[in-house]
Amino acid sequence: MEVGLLGGGVIGGGWAARFLLGGTDVRLYDPDPEAPRKVGEVLEGARRALGRLTLAPLPAEGALTFAESPEDAAEGVAFVQESGPERVDLKRELLAAASRAADPGAIFASSTSGLRPTLLQASMDGPERLCVGHPFNPVYLLPLVEVCGGERTVSETLERAAATYRAVGMHPLVLRREIDGFIADRLLEAQWREALWLVADDVATVEEIDDAMRFGAGLRGAAMGTFLTYRIAGGEAGMRHFMAQFGPALQWPWSRLTDVPELSEELLDKLAAQSDDQAAGRSARELERVRDDCLVSVLQALRTHGVGAGAVLAEQERAWFDARPRPPEPEDLGRPLRLHDARMLPEWVDYNGHVHESRYLQVFGDAADALFRLVGIDQEYLAAGGSYYTVETHLKLRRETAAEERVHVLTQVLGFDPKRLRAFHALHRSSDDALLATAEQTYLHVDTAVGRASAAPDALLARVARIADAHAPLPPPG
Amino acid sequence: MEVGLLGGGVIGGGWAARFLLGGTDVRLYDPDPEAPRKVGEVLEGARRALGRLTLAPLPAEGALTFAESPEDAAEGVAFVQESGPERVDLKRELLAAASRAADPGAIFASSTSGLRPTLLQASMDGPERLCVGHPFNPVYLLPLVEVCGGERTVSETLERAAATYRAVGMHPLVLRREIDGFIADRLLEAQWREALWLVADDVATVEEIDDAMRFGAGLRGAAMGTFLTYRIAGGEAGMRHFMAQFGPALQWPWSRLTDVPELSEELLDKLAAQSDDQAAGRSARELERVRDDCLVSVLQALRTHGVGAGAVLAEQERAWFDARPRPPEPEDLGRPLRLHDARMLPEWVDYNGHVHESRYLQVFGDAADALFRLVGIDQEYLAAGGSYYTVETHLKLRRETAAEERVHVLTQVLGFDPKRLRAFHALHRSSDDALLATAEQTYLHVDTAVGRASAAPDALLARVARIADAHAPLPPPG
Repeated sequence: MEVGLLGGGVIGGGWAARFLLGGTDVRLYDPDPEAPRKVGEVLEGARRALGRLTLAPLPAEGALTFAESPEDAAEGVAFVQESGPERVDLKRELLAAASRAADPGAIFASSTSGLRPTLLQASMDGPERLCVGHPFNPVYLLPLVEVCGGERTVSETLERAAATYRAVGMHPLVLRREIDGFIADRLLEAQWREALWLVADDVATVEEIDDAMRFGAGLRGAAMGTFLTYRIAGGEAGMRHFMAQFGPALQWPWSRLTDVPELSEELLDKLAAQSDDQAAGRSARELERVRDDCLVSVLQALRTHGVGAGAVLAEQERAWFDARPRPPEPEDLGRPLRLHDARMLPEWVDYNGHVHESRYLQVFGDAADALFRLVGIDQEYLAAGGSYYTVETHLKLRRETAAEERVHVLTQVLGFDPKRLRAFHALHRSSDDALLATAEQTYLHVDTAVGRASAAPDALLARVARIADAHAPLPPPG
Repeated sequence: MEVGLLGGGVIGGGWAARFLLGGTDVRLYDPDPEAPRKVGEVLEGARRALGRLTLAPLPAEGALTFAESPEDAAEGVAFVQESGPERVDLKRELLAAASRAADPGAIFASSTSGLRPTLLQASMDGPERLCVGHPFNPVYLLPLVEVCGGERTVSETLERAAATYRAVGMHPLVLRREIDGFIADRLLEAQWREALWLVADDVATVEEIDDAMRFGAGLRGAAMGTFLTYRIAGGEAGMRHFMAQFGPALQWPWSRLTDVPELSEELLDKLAAQSDDQAAGRSARELERVRDDCLVSVLQALRTHGVGAGAVLAEQERAWFDARPRPPEPEDLGRPLRLHDARMLPEWVDYNGHVHESRYLQVFGDAADALFRLVGIDQEYLAAGGSYYTVETHLKLRRETAAEERVHVLTQVLGFDPKRLRAFHALHRSSDDALLATAEQTYLHVDTAVGRASAAPDALLARVARIADAHAPLPPPG
């Protein structure tokens, strides 16, 4: 599949990263001569973030080509995403031009933050093919995309757009009704206006306002929305009780929402100066990295509990794992096997600044799992009640390792009998092959239903034997 | 230190948990006869959450007593926190009564969500002692507390309230000006009104509105507030560029903020029914557990990056570590030493449902740290550039362990020389003393500045020798 992108700014570049790293080819049009550099930078950030987000096998990256015109970007692709500047006239022009060149079956989506799709589809060829697909920054990490049809949009358009987004790990939210600002931006805009008033009235600085969210309610927002949060605050009596208690406050003079602060030069100066203070000299690029690192860790945190965006991530990972082929038989069985590559994660580092020894053992455990998969222990085998358990480990640490270093494990089978398997693992830094640690391990084959040692089945032992025989001539590890 | 609490509902109970688990004694007044049960339930949830949040040594829990009257709760304590119902008359009464009984030097804070402190201090003895200390639910996990003084509040009151909150791991945000709704609730209220309109107008259900946040912008909110987020969206050109691009949208009809939806029976029915659908049969208690589990993981995620509430957590942990007394010399040196107790955490469980082998090694590592502390390796020693590093481990797993089991380690010193130390650790399940695993480890004394083995100083070796001599007659481990 190939998608066409119109616009390569912060949002268009984010779409390019989302699709390319999801394995989809991209044709991108942006008249800005700097577009290739800018998109390249977004893509680099996205690669870094995605590599930290998951240990699942990512699909092969799609190919990126730059198109000369909107028509060129749209021709022959199945899906076109428009992310031009937030101006009706410009968006209409882009979509009209692209729609004339596209296949009749192509679907169009606009990234607009709040313009109604009915306005945008007016001058298109085949207006029924257009919907809004409104993403959130950074597009390559946040799964939400609001899907909204206009007066002339047909339901098949909404379904195909949603399916396209789901295929690259997103969570499409299809709106029931066309409305300015959709859902999320109405909520964000309400908050944003109030925040601007607080600055305009000198009640708080931009940093204090940000702190008022991120040290409090902002922490909850990753896990639960306002309604579920307030339901809990109502205790067992639930929503009705909460409304009885806090409904009246809605009538109190808590906000200045009846008008919009004038964006005078003075207010703009104040905002810019306070924002500079808050950034404390960090560039947009540095701040993006902080943001992405936090988002990655928050997504992983939610994945642990199967909640919200963490559940979306888990599903995407399962899809990536399912797409992984059974490990091929290594070409040269007569050498220690390289079955597991890994990265030392920043959260594995202890107070000395080194990777904690227990994480070495975790990597060796993953290498052992890779060996088990190679000899036929897959999901089906585990479900049937057989597994190898580690009973003894002799671990030697040779060198310290820092976060982010790439490592791999070489595995040598030392011996086996029907119930036991012995292996020797050597952990190497991949950049210079330096030996970091070794582990000699003994595994016991277990009938997990009764929790007792049991003989492994013959088919599995035969596969173990092939490797053990091939490894027999190797020198014993030191 | 002892604090007095007026009110033991969701917020008052949360304060009780925050103070008690922070090591502070609490005297709580609530006329509800069910208060002890309700506070007990909040406390139980908080213990569970805090135990998962940190491996730092928590202070000994404070003592909770229930007071017969507001006066009884306030008498003799240094700090009183009022969390009564959100009604000016009730809050005034509570504060007035308590202020008459309290020491003249006691500080008062109100948990009000938005009432001005000037209103609340009117009928108090010593109104200059009152400020607002507005927390967020759950109080025992979210660090934010908005501190706001009234017309008669003196600055010492604000300082002492902020110091009290900081001592129990919170992040006080002191407001520059008194304002209805303070900062956070003005922002939350703006969003909440808009959300109610979306439901009233049938644009979206409560679940769709929650999803529109938690799959998108809500994920960012834990790490960064709106202003820093939008600055990044402006790219290198920053805030001014962002305002030029999105400022005009503020004038568009994206929200219905000029009035408040009428809370008719019909709207309340709709909210309650949609909220029931969203809860899908889960009780408030179950939802609280999901919320707390996610918050714990999100806080840990932010701690990795030293950002926002994660930085507050890290500081609190350092304080807890610093407050930990040097372990007392064990009474009977002639037996293996019980220096480390631990709990198997739920996140340590692998796909077999058992604690992953690498986590056994982590517990043994913590036991080794306890041994090192016993012989004099403290923060000062580490800062001066000396440390023991593990170079070899012989790990044997005997029994599987499940999440939440309490365990302890018995440690025997096997031998030492100026550079080396050998010890044998046995991990036992505490409930029945069953042996779970053993580890024989060799440690090397290292000059961390140059990263080389070095002889340990004599004073340290003398302490090692005392234990080694006492352990010499013990039978060698199997």
